[in-house]
Amino acid sequence: MTDAAVQAALTELVIANRILAREGVIDDFGHVSVRHPTDPNLYLLSRSRSPEIVVREDIIEFTLEGEPIDQNGRPMYRERALHGAVYMARPDVRSVVHHHARAAIVFSLTGKKLKPAFHMASVIGHDVPVWDSQAEFGDTNMLIETMEQGQSMARAMGGERCVLLRGHGATCCGNTLREAVFVSIYLKENAELVLQTLPLGEPNYLTPGEIDQTRAMLFSEVPQNRTWDYRAARAGFRGL
Amino acid sequence: MTDAAVQAALTELVIANRILAREGVIDDFGHVSVRHPTDPNLYLLSRSRSPEIVVREDIIEFTLEGEPIDQNGRPMYRERALHGAVYMARPDVRSVVHHHARAAIVFSLTGKKLKPAFHMASVIGHDVPVWDSQAEFGDTNMLIETMEQGQSMARAMGGERCVLLRGHGATCCGNTLREAVFVSIYLKENAELVLQTLPLGEPNYLTPGEIDQTRAMLFSEVPQNRTWDYRAARAGFRGL
Amino acid sequence: MTDAAVQAALTELVIANRILAREGVIDDFGHVSVRHPTDPNLYLLSRSRSPEIVVREDIIEFTLEGEPIDQNGRPMYRERALHGAVYMARPDVRSVVHHHARAAIVFSLTGKKLKPAFHMASVIGHDVPVWDSQAEFGDTNMLIETMEQGQSMARAMGGERCVLLRGHGATCCGNTLREAVFVSIYLKENAELVLQTLPLGEPNYLTPGEIDQTRAMLFSEVPQNRTWDYRAARAGFRGL
Amino acid sequence: MTDAAVQAALTELVIANRILAREGVIDDFGHVSVRHPTDPNLYLLSRSRSPEIVVREDIIEFTLEGEPIDQNGRPMYRERALHGAVYMARPDVRSVVHHHARAAIVFSLTGKKLKPAFHMASVIGHDVPVWDSQAEFGDTNMLIETMEQGQSMARAMGGERCVLLRGHGATCCGNTLREAVFVSIYLKENAELVLQTLPLGEPNYLTPGEIDQTRAMLFSEVPQNRTWDYRAARAGFRGL
Repeated sequence: MTDAAVQAALTELVIANRILAREGVIDDFGHVSVRHPTDPNLYLLSRSRSPEIVVREDIIEFTLEGEPIDQNGRPMYRERALHGAVYMARPDVRSVVHHHARAAIVFSLTGKKLKPAFHMASVIGHDVPVWDSQAEFGDTNMLIETMEQGQSMARAMGGERCVLLRGHGATCCGNTLREAVFVSIYLKENAELVLQTLPLGEPNYLTPGEIDQTRAMLFSEVPQNRTWDYRAARAGFRGL
Repeated sequence: MTDAAVQAALTELVIANRILAREGVIDDFGHVSVRHPTDPNLYLLSRSRSPEIVVREDIIEFTLEGEPIDQNGRPMYRERALHGAVYMARPDVRSVVHHHARAAIVFSLTGKKLKPAFHMASVIGHDVPVWDSQAEFGDTNMLIETMEQGQSMARAMGGERCVLLRGHGATCCGNTLREAVFVSIYLKENAELVLQTLPLGEPNYLTPGEIDQTRAMLFSEVPQNRTWDYRAARAGFRGL
Repeated sequence: MTDAAVQAALTELVIANRILAREGVIDDFGHVSVRHPTDPNLYLLSRSRSPEIVVREDIIEFTLEGEPIDQNGRPMYRERALHGAVYMARPDVRSVVHHHARAAIVFSLTGKKLKPAFHMASVIGHDVPVWDSQAEFGDTNMLIETMEQGQSMARAMGGERCVLLRGHGATCCGNTLREAVFVSIYLKENAELVLQTLPLGEPNYLTPGEIDQTRAMLFSEVPQNRTWDYRAARAGFRGL
Repeated sequence: MTDAAVQAALTELVIANRILAREGVIDDFGHVSVRHPTDPNLYLLSRSRSPEIVVREDIIEFTLEGEPIDQNGRPMYRERALHGAVYMARPDVRSVVHHHARAAIVFSLTGKKLKPAFHMASVIGHDVPVWDSQAEFGDTNMLIETMEQGQSMARAMGGERCVLLRGHGATCCGNTLREAVFVSIYLKENAELVLQTLPLGEPNYLTPGEIDQTRAMLFSEVPQNRTWDYRAARAGFRGL
């Protein structure tokens, strides 16, 4: 049972890697993790490898502090701290995605706030905070490499599902792996839609009530299955 | 004969699903229906599944009220009401497409009206109305789930082939399935073209007379066959 | 010898159809013709079919007036007049492309003139005239269906290699089929580049002297072969 | 040993050609060279052929003056001077890429300076100079065909890794072939990101300290391997 749960989590995590690559959310860098299905103090994350080419053998177990349980000499992502910090701060979170989707970065570079403009984007929530590494850490290599940096970012995220990192990218999370992937895709899609709209004027965003009702509907089982099957098929996994 | 007509309709409906996915009109959500070829009080629509992966076995028969004739436990799209409401209000309509093409949504978010700027786009008609669920229903989950909502949207559509849904997407229809697919694609293409043009100034749109003459030409048999064969080939169906 | 020349022309014409589809210059509509290699009073053009799926058996011979020599019941493109009119007016022209590349259409919709902004675009020439069917023919179905319309368009084109058709598309030509394809692709590419640049200010276009020198270089044999082999490979014809 | 180094360099150079084509950095024209692994007075560059279809047998050895060692009748790129001039001026450089990425060209056409707006783009450096062939050479065919032109461009580049060529493209270099490819891709990506951002206001660029620290991190071994494996896989070389 335990073992089956781990095997299922590994399968889903590999598919999530490929989906995020296929959808242009993640390119050479960026990564996705899932909390261990039976031990909430561990999470699963690939070795240092682009999601496009991640396979099951690349997955390593980590403590929330980012220490590998079974490294076996494999190189590791440097930004493990952002995964661990979110899992520590948010018991509700079971999956974290870190990516550099260009349209999302745009909204980290000026004072313009990103808000949901269409129904699917309700999943990014009422507020998308921006975290700027300069504020607390000054000049850095822009990565989130220490637990202090990860925790600072997690504080900025608060109870939301997304946080933008100035000049860097975004971190998204979800109550399930599928949710985190879904949120990541629609953070990007919404940013692109708003960028298309702004030259015509300020868009008529979703109301707070619409965000709440639509998000609840989208996170229910049938739509989550529908989108996952679609994204998985596009990423090469048909008929799972 | 009847059976052959149904089989032909099913084949065409599966191809339409794949075309709309291939052309980026529909992604994970959105759907396309066709009126039953021999019983105008029924329509055919897939089970809840993304059009990219719909196959013949997914198609269910529905009454215009959205009740399934042969569900067999398959999950259903929640927005069946928008299909039925259009079929009820418009005896001329034999196919309905509901999609979330981004550029079309843009024109639902500000007061800017969408008008045809190039010949192919004449098929979207003289006016593309915008329906806002807020006006009549207040905060909702943005879906068209009740017949009242569907009928409200159908009233906004009036005798046109397209209606935009604020912060949500569009509903397009046609006298044939091929027309509805064609209109959906060129609603998106025209919105993208106008968005590219606006920074240079207000485009010189088609005149009313040009819209009428060009649309009549485009809905004739030879161009409809040409575009269908092309789209079907791109979607993987060559040499049909 | 004659027969070999015709066979070679047919092969190249099929490849040109596929290249224009692959590069997004032509989609469901649009077409490309080549003057008959041994009889300058004829030209070769596909039956009514999207370039993406044209095969050798689709090619029909036409008189410059657009009468088919060997129709054999095949449906024909309606806009043959634009091909014939250019061949009549321009003995130097051996190939004509008619397409609806979106970025080119943009420059037919406002008063903004399209000019070459980078070296490859020198091939569109010093001036890209815009022909508006309204001026001489009033409301039409936007197609160029009569020789009068074709000749009006050819007059607007004058001695240039491109003419934009308001709310419709563009007609491009060349001294060879490869040139006409090359010009069509870079008309689109230059329009896209200028559209990207304009928000930053008016671009520093090529000077007249740069246009002349660069165009002469690009139309020489080595660059023409290089680009053709590349485009053909992308269209599925490798190692020809 | 020597021979193995040359074989490895040839393999990597072919992959670099395909990567730059796959990523849309280079299209029909443009080229990439690498300094000879054992003789710094030579460099390796393909015959005149689009990078998309370059194979090992296309690679020619050149002196820094652009004279072929082993031409064997193969047609050559005309802009060899830009490669040689950079190798002469910059002993630290082991690879040069010349390309026409559209978004980079945009920043050669107005006075707007291109600066790094996100972490990956730190590799383009603090300053991206623009070289205009007009200043020193007046009207030309826009190519860099003489050593004088190449040296003029190299002077403009100075100690940077990128230089934009007005109305033409860009030249990028690196201490390794992988670096030069990486810089070329992120020059394009950064230009696209900044173009997306400018309508919202001037972006909050990386600080000088962030550029230095981030660039040093990105040019280290693990990230360079990660991105190379990803780009190679996308270009068709998996599991190398």
